[in-house]
Amino acid sequence: MTRRQPPKYDMPLVRVDVSLMALHEGALHVLLGLREEPPFAGQLGLPGGVLRIDRDASLEAAARRVAEERLLVSLPNLEQVGAVGEPGRDPRSPWAISIVYRSLVDLARLSVTPGKRVAALQWVPVERARRNRDLAFDHARLIGMAVDSARREVRDMNFPLGWLPESFTLSELQALSEAVLGEPLDKVTFRRRIDAREQVEPVEGQMRAGGAHRPAQVYRFRR
Amino acid sequence: MTRRQPPKYDMPLVRVDVSLMALHEGALHVLLGLREEPPFAGQLGLPGGVLRIDRDASLEAAARRVAEERLLVSLPNLEQVGAVGEPGRDPRSPWAISIVYRSLVDLARLSVTPGKRVAALQWVPVERARRNRDLAFDHARLIGMAVDSARREVRDMNFPLGWLPESFTLSELQALSEAVLGEPLDKVTFRRRIDAREQVEPVEGQMRAGGAHRPAQVYRFRR
Repeated sequence: MTRRQPPKYDMPLVRVDVSLMALHEGALHVLLGLREEPPFAGQLGLPGGVLRIDRDASLEAAARRVAEERLLVSLPNLEQVGAVGEPGRDPRSPWAISIVYRSLVDLARLSVTPGKRVAALQWVPVERARRNRDLAFDHARLIGMAVDSARREVRDMNFPLGWLPESFTLSELQALSEAVLGEPLDKVTFRRRIDAREQVEPVEGQMRAGGAHRPAQVYRFRR
Repeated sequence: MTRRQPPKYDMPLVRVDVSLMALHEGALHVLLGLREEPPFAGQLGLPGGVLRIDRDASLEAAARRVAEERLLVSLPNLEQVGAVGEPGRDPRSPWAISIVYRSLVDLARLSVTPGKRVAALQWVPVERARRNRDLAFDHARLIGMAVDSARREVRDMNFPLGWLPESFTLSELQALSEAVLGEPLDKVTFRRRIDAREQVEPVEGQMRAGGAHRPAQVYRFRR
């Protein structure tokens, strides 16, 4: 038997914040919005908003609603990065939680538009964004968490879906991985790890000419 | 400039729940507590409790406080698994969030004791726990998340610290991995992946006799 009781303790403010990331000119970028309203009006921050328990059916639904309101877009590949909660994170409440989501997208397949309470949107290189002390809230830190989480997946070769083409040569896969990681990978180690994970398979009979090099085998992910 | 405003919206109840896991007789187990108080008094559930914004300095601090209260233990290797939030999860509130933490421990190095509001503690095989429909709240599902998260790390060979000995033979490392995963691993693939990740290094001159087999090289994680 369970009884419904009145809440005994004060609860924190709960927000959802979305770190939308994409490769742009060979480097990982994150989408920031210029805030129209306080707190932090006139500053850049992650698109996000306060959880609405009267409207949201889950935390992920809240993240999707917020992305639709702020960016007028339906996000693919939404992944939860984690939750952060501390006193002093939000001037509207003594204690605030952010549930952070990330989505790694292909810019060619997604377009965003400033929505409710967003004056403008801006793609910023992640290294610059995570070190920017002028962002709203502690969003520089949340961006750091989202970037580290996406990079961990790529480093572990659990390639996040959505930002990779259907098929690719191993050189192309390595170049995309390096762009997300922001650092070069050793070709021999990369290929040995690809082999060991048994994740990709050759597409029978498909080769691709590669400039001065001999044609390279085309691969795809195993089903 | 930012202004402090009264909260506009009702906030959810926020709990932290801890999935403490360990190998026992070659299988992964999770620690469940018999609840002394409602809701779900007399049922088994994860050790956990309501976030106290007047006492907790962070979500992780809340998880540590709860573990200390319920299990009279200071937990090593606490990792956040993620946050779950939905209507109907807790009879005390229309909408409730759980921030789920996990800790993979070595039973030989940790002992737990029933604390506040816990009538008894019980180690249960994870496969049984995650399918048990009689657990408190939706804890069977939270256990599933924690188990999947620990297994993903082991599968990616990001071995969680704390449950592995300082040094080991590759056969021992494989056996421990298999116990966490609950399934056998192919020896050749396992060794190829260990080599490719370049995580472990031989301990110079240390070999270990292995029953009928020839002595095996002893390894440790690289610093």
